[in-house]
Parts: sequence; structure tokens; C-alpha cells
Amino acid sequence: MADFAIGIDIGGTNTKFGVVDRNGDIIEQGRTLTNEHENVQEFIDELFLQLSPMIKKAGGAKEFVGIGVGAPNGNYYTGNIEHAANLKWKGIIPIASMMSEKFDMKVKLTNDANAAAVGEMMYGCAKGMKHFITITLGTGVGSGIVIDGKIVLGHDGFAGELGHVVVRPGGRMHKGTGIRGSLEAYASATGVRETAIEILTENPDTESLLRTYSLNDLTSQAVYDCAVKGDKIALQIFEFTGQILGEALANFIMFSSPEAIILFGGLTKAGDLIINPTRKAMEENLIQVFKNKVKLMFSELKEADAAILGASALVWEE
Amino acid sequence: MADFAIGIDIGGTNTKFGVVDRNGDIIEQGRTLTNEHENVQEFIDELFLQLSPMIKKAGGAKEFVGIGVGAPNGNYYTGNIEHAANLKWKGIIPIASMMSEKFDMKVKLTNDANAAAVGEMMYGCAKGMKHFITITLGTGVGSGIVIDGKIVLGHDGFAGELGHVVVRPGGRMHKGTGIRGSLEAYASATGVRETAIEILTENPDTESLLRTYSLNDLTSQAVYDCAVKGDKIALQIFEFTGQILGEALANFIMFSSPEAIILFGGLTKAGDLIINPTRKAMEENLIQVFKNKVKLMFSELKEADAAILGASALVWEE
Repeated sequence: MADFAIGIDIGGTNTKFGVVDRNGDIIEQGRTLTNEHENVQEFIDELFLQLSPMIKKAGGAKEFVGIGVGAPNGNYYTGNIEHAANLKWKGIIPIASMMSEKFDMKVKLTNDANAAAVGEMMYGCAKGMKHFITITLGTGVGSGIVIDGKIVLGHDGFAGELGHVVVRPGGRMHKGTGIRGSLEAYASATGVRETAIEILTENPDTESLLRTYSLNDLTSQAVYDCAVKGDKIALQIFEFTGQILGEALANFIMFSSPEAIILFGGLTKAGDLIINPTRKAMEENLIQVFKNKVKLMFSELKEADAAILGASALVWEE
Repeated sequence: MADFAIGIDIGGTNTKFGVVDRNGDIIEQGRTLTNEHENVQEFIDELFLQLSPMIKKAGGAKEFVGIGVGAPNGNYYTGNIEHAANLKWKGIIPIASMMSEKFDMKVKLTNDANAAAVGEMMYGCAKGMKHFITITLGTGVGSGIVIDGKIVLGHDGFAGELGHVVVRPGGRMHKGTGIRGSLEAYASATGVRETAIEILTENPDTESLLRTYSLNDLTSQAVYDCAVKGDKIALQIFEFTGQILGEALANFIMFSSPEAIILFGGLTKAGDLIINPTRKAMEENLIQVFKNKVKLMFSELKEADAAILGASALVWEE
């Protein structure tokens, strides 16, 4: 019986990969810059170069059940990355079959958020849960939905795009999609930055530490730094973000009635500053039957680990 | 092998029931007024009285696999009706066990919208589909969600409350739930009536046939009657309703990526008047990967039939 799997998490900036054993320990890992590679073949060649010594060290390819890959717009059914907005490689990319050819292993693909959800289910705080939703609050907003212990893929493999649900009809324009008022336009790091600019501009007379930052430096991290110092506008930014996120979570709960919603990604570093207003708005928008029932929690896995572990789990499962 | 099942659809006004054979033909049926019965036992006794001759005619209880019941807030896991806003019987009602005792048959319960979705899957236009959502546009807005060929029940059996998702934050108050801006406040018959009153009040100088109706008679049916005569305000009411409904459907699609959304209930009588603006708003709010892919259709089953057939299917399944 093969004892290892490879998990690869392809992100818009970094690609992280690792060799995972049956206990869910990442025994070796590495990374490469995704968009440094002009084409996919070159990217795969680089992965092969870096992974080959790790594979050899673990006893060779025969010791591996296969390779699991999480990627933006990765489709489990087709093994293709399809029209990923954040990647340099455009169109439809048959990455699973290309990698399978290069590595001579079974390769399974899913989208990055789904991979992270599987990681949470197998090794994180969703262990033992059959119904939960993970929400990544990073540069964008991603999601993985688990119902009856299975990732929801939908009719065509693209289910779980909760970052793109509209939460403020006619609201803020999302430059990537052209849709107004989507969750991602507010509850991502990018969204928090935009909220900061909006609130600062609309309240020119309110003092704020945030006014000392250059536009370039006005990041969600800056908002956090100011909020912990008690800056009123910075606190207001998190209140606003949590309000919108909480409303959205309430809607998700009324769809699939999960046991828990698990948040991860950069914004969760804000801790109580983000989760308190989120929980409040969530509870306020739930009908009776769901109130005070659904756990809202932060992931305990490192983000990269969740994705590598979840990706590797795609091949363990089989 | 037993050849028949009983399907019972408990609604806020009417309870409809029937004897169903393995082909999905309703060979006998009847009805009673739900809220005429002060308590549940009396209601069950009445059902027993009416169903007994039907059971006898079909060869007796041994010819039946059991009784399937669809009811507001009916919970599949517990067999209880829990806090149903539209029923006279308050609190938690163990209706499945009570009926099982009276009829000496297996009884399975689910909520009425889920029962209708099962009916669509087994006998209606969702035949052969594994991923779809049904939306009832009636006095309220109900929903049944099917993923991988199974009704989504969620962690506690209450999943699929899509009428209560918030589509206009801070919007119209829903008297039953106290929540502002939920889908049901707009896309139900009640919501259409409220929209009519709002638009008529806000546009006092615009002529409309609807102004000749008394407040009591200003129903969604009246709006339809005026719209087919070309009344501008009536048409505007359907445009507005379709816009909101379409936005909500887009959000649902980004959750579970269904093959189709199936609409039924009283409002669907408006046909193109409601489905055209709905489809337009739905497509406008979808990200690329979902555009022009999801079928939006009307149920071809009679509403009562779908619910009776779907309820009966609960016991066939086993």
C-alpha cells in the first residue's frame, strides 16, 4: 500500500506543495512563484524538478497514491483549470492530464477553496463534521461547501462561488467580474482597503491614524494596526465589513443549514475585531430555527497547510 | 411487494392527500381544511376517516409501503413539525409518530417544499436531474434543494429556507420573521401585493387600472389581470419582482451550481411577465462560468400533485 501523497496548492501568487503521509503530516514542502512561469508546461517542469528528489527520498513513485491539486477555477470533473482570472495562463488548461503525463501518477484537481475545506474536514476543526462551509477571506473571498460529508461540486463542478454572491444590489463594482455589490467586493483584503478609502473620504473631518498612510500602504493590515490602537475609523471599517459578511453568512446558513462556518485567510488575523460584528449581523438575519445554533470559528490550520493537506486528500479518498 | 403509498401535503389552508401507485399515478385523492382542526389528534382522526375507505379499496394496509407527509417546518430527522408559523398547532408536534400509531404504517415527514422537489425529481420536469432547486412562489416563498440526487436537509433537517434569505438589506419588513429585505417579502403573492401598494402610492399621478381595485381586492391576481391588459404599473410590478427574484436565483446558482431552477406556485401563472425579468436579472448577476447554462423553467406538475407525489416518494425511497 502506497504511504504518501503529493498535495499542490496553486495560488495567484505562490504555489505551495508538499509530500503528505497517511497521518496528515507534511513531511517535505516547497514553493514556487506561480506567475513567473510563462506557460503551464514550464510550471509543471519546475514542480517536477523540485518534487523529484522528495519523491525519491520517500522511496520512489510507487510509494505514492497520486497527486492532488487545488487551483483557482480547478474543475474536479474535467481536470481542467478553466478561465482563472488570477492566473497568467488563459483559457482552458488540462493541467491534471499534463501533470499525470509528466509525473506518471494519478492526478486529481479541484478548486483551491474546496481543497482547503477537505483539509479542514480531514485534519482541521471540521474533523467529524458532515455539514459545514469554509470561507477564505484573503485577496479574494473563496468558499468550500460540505454537505453530508462531501464537497458540493454542483452540476458542472463549479459550485461554491460564494465570494460572488450579491450582498448589496447596485453596490460596489467588482472589477474582475463587472458585477455590483458582491461579497468579495467588501469582505476581501481588497474590499477592506476600498472601504477604508470610502469611509476616510466620506468623513473628511474625522481624525484617523489611517490618514498618515500613503494610498499604497493603506492595506487591510494597516486598518488592523490602527484598529488595535483604538482608531475609530479603523474600527468602523471592521464593523462595516463584519456587518456585510454576517448578513451573507446568514443567507448561506438558510441554504444548507451547516453545523459550522469556518473562516480563514489573511483577514481572520483581525480576530474579534472581525468575528464579533460578523456574528452579530449573522444572528440578526437568521430565522428562529437557526439562531444560536451555528458555530462561527476560525480555522486552526495554517492556510497553506489546509490547502496542501486538502489537495492531497483528493487522492487518498479514492 | 406493496404497491401503494399515501402522500399527504399539509398546507396552511388546505391539506391534500392521495393514494399513489408505483407509476406515480394518484388513483384517489381528497382534502380537508387544515386549520379547521383545533388540535392535531383531531386532524389525524379526520385523515384516518377519509383515507380508510381508500386504503380498503386498494386491498388494505398490507398493500401500502407507508405514508409520506410534507408539512411546513416538517423535519425529516425528527418526524416533528417544529414551530410552523402558518399552522394553528404551536410548538413541536410529533406528527409522524402520532400518525404511525393511528394508521399502523411507516410514516415519513419532510417539509412541504422538499416534498414538492422530490415530486419534480421523480415525476416532473426534473426527472433525471441530480442538481436542481425548486422555488415555490405562493403565499410565501418555499424551496427544495437537490444536490447529487438528494434533498439537502443540512445539519438539523432545516436546510433550504431560501424564502428567508435577505436580498435587500434594510428593506421591506417581513411581519412573520421580523427580518428586513427577505426574498419572501418581495417574491410571494403577499409581496407582490405590497409592491403594488408601494408603487401606486409613490406614483400618484400615473394612471393605472389597479387604482379601481379596493385594497382587499388588490391581489397578485389583480396585478396579473391588469398586466395582461398592458397596464404600465402592473407591468412595472412584475419587472420589479422579477428583478429581485432573478438576483436571488443568481446567488443560489453560485452556491450549488444546479442544472435547473424550477418555479411553481400561484405567481408562475404570470408566465412570461414574471419569468422574463427574472431570467434577465439572474443572468446579469452570474459570473461568466455560470452564464447561459442554468435552465429556468416552470413546473409542469400541478402544485398539489407535486407535493402529494413527493410526499409519497419519501416512503417509496426506502
